[in-house]
Amino acid sequence: MRPDGRASDELRSVQIQPDFIIHPEGSVLITVGKTKVICNASIEDRVPPFLRGQKKGWITAEYAMLPRATPDRNIRESSRGKVTGRTMEIQRLIGRALRSVVDLDRLGERTLWIDCDVIQADGGTRTASITGAFVAMALAFKKALERKQIAKLPIKSYLAATSVGVHPVHGPILDLCYKEDSTTDVDMNIVMNGHDEYIEIQGTGEEATFNEKELATLLSLAKKGIHELIEIEKAILGDLVIEQKVGTNK
Amino acid sequence: MRPDGRASDELRSVQIQPDFIIHPEGSVLITVGKTKVICNASIEDRVPPFLRGQKKGWITAEYAMLPRATPDRNIRESSRGKVTGRTMEIQRLIGRALRSVVDLDRLGERTLWIDCDVIQADGGTRTASITGAFVAMALAFKKALERKQIAKLPIKSYLAATSVGVHPVHGPILDLCYKEDSTTDVDMNIVMNGHDEYIEIQGTGEEATFNEKELATLLSLAKKGIHELIEIEKAILGDLVIEQKVGTNK
Amino acid sequence: MRPDGRASDELRSVQIQPDFIIHPEGSVLITVGKTKVICNASIEDRVPPFLRGQKKGWITAEYAMLPRATPDRNIRESSRGKVTGRTMEIQRLIGRALRSVVDLDRLGERTLWIDCDVIQADGGTRTASITGAFVAMALAFKKALERKQIAKLPIKSYLAATSVGVHPVHGPILDLCYKEDSTTDVDMNIVMNGHDEYIEIQGTGEEATFNEKELATLLSLAKKGIHELIEIEKAILGDLVIEQKVGTNK
Amino acid sequence: MRPDGRASDELRSVQIQPDFIIHPEGSVLITVGKTKVICNASIEDRVPPFLRGQKKGWITAEYAMLPRATPDRNIRESSRGKVTGRTMEIQRLIGRALRSVVDLDRLGERTLWIDCDVIQADGGTRTASITGAFVAMALAFKKALERKQIAKLPIKSYLAATSVGVHPVHGPILDLCYKEDSTTDVDMNIVMNGHDEYIEIQGTGEEATFNEKELATLLSLAKKGIHELIEIEKAILGDLVIEQKVGTNK
Amino acid sequence: MRPDGRASDELRSVQIQPDFIIHPEGSVLITVGKTKVICNASIEDRVPPFLRGQKKGWITAEYAMLPRATPDRNIRESSRGKVTGRTMEIQRLIGRALRSVVDLDRLGERTLWIDCDVIQADGGTRTASITGAFVAMALAFKKALERKQIAKLPIKSYLAATSVGVHPVHGPILDLCYKEDSTTDVDMNIVMNGHDEYIEIQGTGEEATFNEKELATLLSLAKKGIHELIEIEKAILGDLVIEQKVGTNK
Amino acid sequence: MRPDGRASDELRSVQIQPDFIIHPEGSVLITVGKTKVICNASIEDRVPPFLRGQKKGWITAEYAMLPRATPDRNIRESSRGKVTGRTMEIQRLIGRALRSVVDLDRLGERTLWIDCDVIQADGGTRTASITGAFVAMALAFKKALERKQIAKLPIKSYLAATSVGVHPVHGPILDLCYKEDSTTDVDMNIVMNGHDEYIEIQGTGEEATFNEKELATLLSLAKKGIHELIEIEKAILGDLVIEQKVGTNK
Repeated sequence: MRPDGRASDELRSVQIQPDFIIHPEGSVLITVGKTKVICNASIEDRVPPFLRGQKKGWITAEYAMLPRATPDRNIRESSRGKVTGRTMEIQRLIGRALRSVVDLDRLGERTLWIDCDVIQADGGTRTASITGAFVAMALAFKKALERKQIAKLPIKSYLAATSVGVHPVHGPILDLCYKEDSTTDVDMNIVMNGHDEYIEIQGTGEEATFNEKELATLLSLAKKGIHELIEIEKAILGDLVIEQKVGTNK
Repeated sequence: MRPDGRASDELRSVQIQPDFIIHPEGSVLITVGKTKVICNASIEDRVPPFLRGQKKGWITAEYAMLPRATPDRNIRESSRGKVTGRTMEIQRLIGRALRSVVDLDRLGERTLWIDCDVIQADGGTRTASITGAFVAMALAFKKALERKQIAKLPIKSYLAATSVGVHPVHGPILDLCYKEDSTTDVDMNIVMNGHDEYIEIQGTGEEATFNEKELATLLSLAKKGIHELIEIEKAILGDLVIEQKVGTNK
Repeated sequence: MRPDGRASDELRSVQIQPDFIIHPEGSVLITVGKTKVICNASIEDRVPPFLRGQKKGWITAEYAMLPRATPDRNIRESSRGKVTGRTMEIQRLIGRALRSVVDLDRLGERTLWIDCDVIQADGGTRTASITGAFVAMALAFKKALERKQIAKLPIKSYLAATSVGVHPVHGPILDLCYKEDSTTDVDMNIVMNGHDEYIEIQGTGEEATFNEKELATLLSLAKKGIHELIEIEKAILGDLVIEQKVGTNK
Repeated sequence: MRPDGRASDELRSVQIQPDFIIHPEGSVLITVGKTKVICNASIEDRVPPFLRGQKKGWITAEYAMLPRATPDRNIRESSRGKVTGRTMEIQRLIGRALRSVVDLDRLGERTLWIDCDVIQADGGTRTASITGAFVAMALAFKKALERKQIAKLPIKSYLAATSVGVHPVHGPILDLCYKEDSTTDVDMNIVMNGHDEYIEIQGTGEEATFNEKELATLLSLAKKGIHELIEIEKAILGDLVIEQKVGTNK
Repeated sequence: MRPDGRASDELRSVQIQPDFIIHPEGSVLITVGKTKVICNASIEDRVPPFLRGQKKGWITAEYAMLPRATPDRNIRESSRGKVTGRTMEIQRLIGRALRSVVDLDRLGERTLWIDCDVIQADGGTRTASITGAFVAMALAFKKALERKQIAKLPIKSYLAATSVGVHPVHGPILDLCYKEDSTTDVDMNIVMNGHDEYIEIQGTGEEATFNEKELATLLSLAKKGIHELIEIEKAILGDLVIEQKVGTNK
Repeated sequence: MRPDGRASDELRSVQIQPDFIIHPEGSVLITVGKTKVICNASIEDRVPPFLRGQKKGWITAEYAMLPRATPDRNIRESSRGKVTGRTMEIQRLIGRALRSVVDLDRLGERTLWIDCDVIQADGGTRTASITGAFVAMALAFKKALERKQIAKLPIKSYLAATSVGVHPVHGPILDLCYKEDSTTDVDMNIVMNGHDEYIEIQGTGEEATFNEKELATLLSLAKKGIHELIEIEKAILGDLVIEQKVGTNK
């Protein structure tokens, strides 16, 4: 049995509370088991230098943890004077994932800033951040539509993320809590869209390995979890997002 | 009339929610009007180098704002690579204020870390941080008592903080919200203990000035607000803190 | 008796030597007892980005100590790679204080840079810096008048600063030297203008407290000291500064 | 046809030149098409603080590009004052990959430093770095064996890495050169060991997506390429590495 | 006898391999004994801010060592977060030396970037860098001529550099290898042009001293070595560089 | 005629004021024409890590300019967050020069810190710093003798420095002021000891060149200037320094 009594293909309890902070254009608190992340989306009317004059938008993400989001206190990255490699990886992942379901041309010369701040951590903070950030982004675009800044919602598909892993005792499992994550040899984060297409697969043996059969089981568990997460998103966003064929942004 | 209809000597609505985050030894969410700050207290079993071997403890505070705690998005200090002067001033203020009511000898060779993270800002974030941090600290010490790490609560008095200012129209007012703060010429932060003693007075004309009579009114408004805040603290902490004569830590 | 035999309401010997360094528009060496600070004022024909196009000026201050201004050698902030929190607090204080007596509109789109470099320290370096910086600023504006860069001196009032404190033996005292400062529980810096108005009150118990009666005595001592400092400024500046009603710069 | 006339499942020409630099314990120049990486392995007789006293070793990797390894000159990371997110991701990937095939207990309290310096880039620098680093590491361990620092080679399996992608015209292809990489929607880096087990799968749509069928083809292309790379490694290392069952290092 | 059997006035074996890296406008690998430096020259179509609008060009140099260019591994400057004083000195020296033989007006508003990356070090890396950089620069200008970016080669004279020193046993010697350099009291780097004129003399006792007679011998050894180095440059560059009277760039 | 009417072999007026700052073990203000440098020497009872346990001392120097030491205001290096290449070169030069005349064994496991702070600059700040630092160092050692920290003065010889240059109109000249320095093609800093031995020769064409004859004249001018500077040092230090044969510290 898993520490919290879940079946191996069972997600933790997930809540997404919209309009959590009053100032951002889009804001949610996503809760996945004991993991809690504030996801804020801000729209800025300009793009980074490398995109100027190209009539397309950009999405960039930042991720941080409060020092006591974890059992032991972490040094604040602002005190450290630099962002760790782990944080950079996560920020790049969130940004790439969101850009894959957005029509950047339709966004116009605007930057969408996503801030994911983990206030309580119990495993899966990067995948919870992606799922929460997707909803915050959709809410921000909804507000931009209402303010007539944009003519049409620039989102092409739903998007969600979860983690899977191979536990030495339980075998392949879905949505690892921290205790599971730290005893699991193989750990994989999967991001998918509403068409069952992969956006990102990041599987690492973390000093162990996995074979082709285990890979197949992990991918199948992830697909089930992502289907359920997208249903939760739909319950909040209603008919805001209309699925379209996802081309490329290049 | 003030923007939110308050009388000039009226605090905003204040809530202090204990045990907000599960991991820290002490944790509260303090809400003052629309200002919300997570205050976490952590106990570490060692002291900074300059205190080693002196058999006394230390208290240090860190303060940060989420980028969208404010109407416009702020650059994250970890991305900026350094902490701003404003943040440093606030951190030093919170630390000094807490140390003034703690018997550091009784704490033993331990460091109490206070993390104040503003998730939503509407003026008065530094004074809300001090008031919230005091409660988080008391809860952390309570846990240390229960775990028998310390023999007696090392707190010598209650502590709270508020802001006062001279508004060009309303004159002297208590507990400024952001809109008031930005139109007020003179701005003062007051920290007091449960014996009506001053811990800190920081009054600045911010390019204006104030005379002796205005100063007297401001100090009187602050005392009233701090009395009310200490009542709210007492409602949470019960008879945990016993007021004692406050000596000096030097 | 105080270590240097002064009465409790007596300033140390103060000299302000104008035109100390040849290059700056305004330059003084201020000596307060054994504390010596070089204050240089530079006028730059542009303003920081946040003020561009507003037809008003700005004043910004930097403060530093030579490594051996103190009995023990301090690490140079340029070697450390960053400015300490203490330095930032002092720089912000000096800038705010000077701006409170200057008509920034009359200055035009110019920045006045103040550099306060402590070459020898014996307590009170931040208040000596403010008093010296005021004179350096006035000399720089005088030169700008002579060069017809500005039409009228943009200074609205005199300005000076001093420290007061509660000594465990001597009680409330004026103008603390280092030895007194380090044995004093309560320490307060006061900045006032030529109309007996407060610009800044920074009183901190530094882990101790002070009551209302002590506060009243401290404020009265500070007023006496500032009157004397302004007389010394007037002896140098003659009839250059004409006192006007001090409005606000906002 | 691909720009250099290769079949879709064909690697570029690969050479690994051992003993390229005289000072390191292990050193190779790996050439993959026009991509050239110097991989140096250094053995240090101590471990990072988090591992002290645990009688096991550690492997850490650093990666850099000469400024003109690429068609346009890049800013040197030492001038920039910090390492980019991309570099950090690659360094962490190389370290994890190597640790997955090494018995860290058998290494003893030693750190193996891997330095991968790209002197000429034409796509696939991170996978070439992993393959080259594996050989440099094996040569360093061989020297440590000869010097009797270690009793037995601590390598449990061969290791190699390659890239695969979905090209809009050619479909799934193996070992992308820069021109292909920049026109390819989907890009995946695969690291495998000598038992056909996955060490790492990093597949990203880079703002596009891929489906289950494409994933299967990509994994199969990668396996073919990695088989060929391991043959090249064996030609250099001879019977130095003996394949063993790969457990976990946790 | 010197460690490698050379006479006291004998250079080590020197090779300069042109077109070493494919991307830069000019690229060489210079080998001096066991010292190997990749020198790349890049032409950028703009100048630093301080030169804009002056219709003249600029030359700037960067220098780095691979961590294992040396017997012990050095910390990478990008990890350290800053460039050491030694590196800065060398970079400034290389830039000054090259600028002394180039007509910056003829270069037009362009920056020539020189990157010297030491892949293997055995003494004399800074002088090898200058000699190699000169050839890389000439090759880059040749390409700019061919592309008709410039009308005439902006080089006014040949340029080469070497080191000399006073060895406690062998006395004055030419072109020190690392072993000699570390046992030599006095160490001097000399840069000269093709007219036997000095560009730079950097002689330091490194905690020892030298007298006038030793200085004369050292200068004479250096001249002999530089003559030989310029012959090697001429063998590569043919009649590309035509010696002219060297004026000043000021 | 030179701008200040000097002959080509004439030093500017030089004063060295001992005991300028009260706290350091040794302190002077050196004035060379309009150049003024505060040189402070501090003795610390420990050595840098690389020297621990070797029973010998170390000398390290730091150099800085006040922002308005120059006609235009320079950015403070502490605000910039790093020390410039120019500053690093000068610091290394001062340290090397002083170490060349000190018996580091006799100093014991102590570090002598030299701080040279230029308060007013008019050319020649690095050579004035060396000359002033020598006297400050001697005074600090004198105090250490008096306190019986050391048994014998560890100085082996006098030391002084000056600059020489080739002016386009006046030809070779001694001790350049700023105006001369900025119009001079060739610029050379010479450090010598009391035995007419060279400690350091730093001659740079700064984009120009100089020939053997010019070099000979420059060296002769420098020797004359250094003789005069050492006379000034002797007038202050009396018979404190006894010239000995200068060996090497290696």
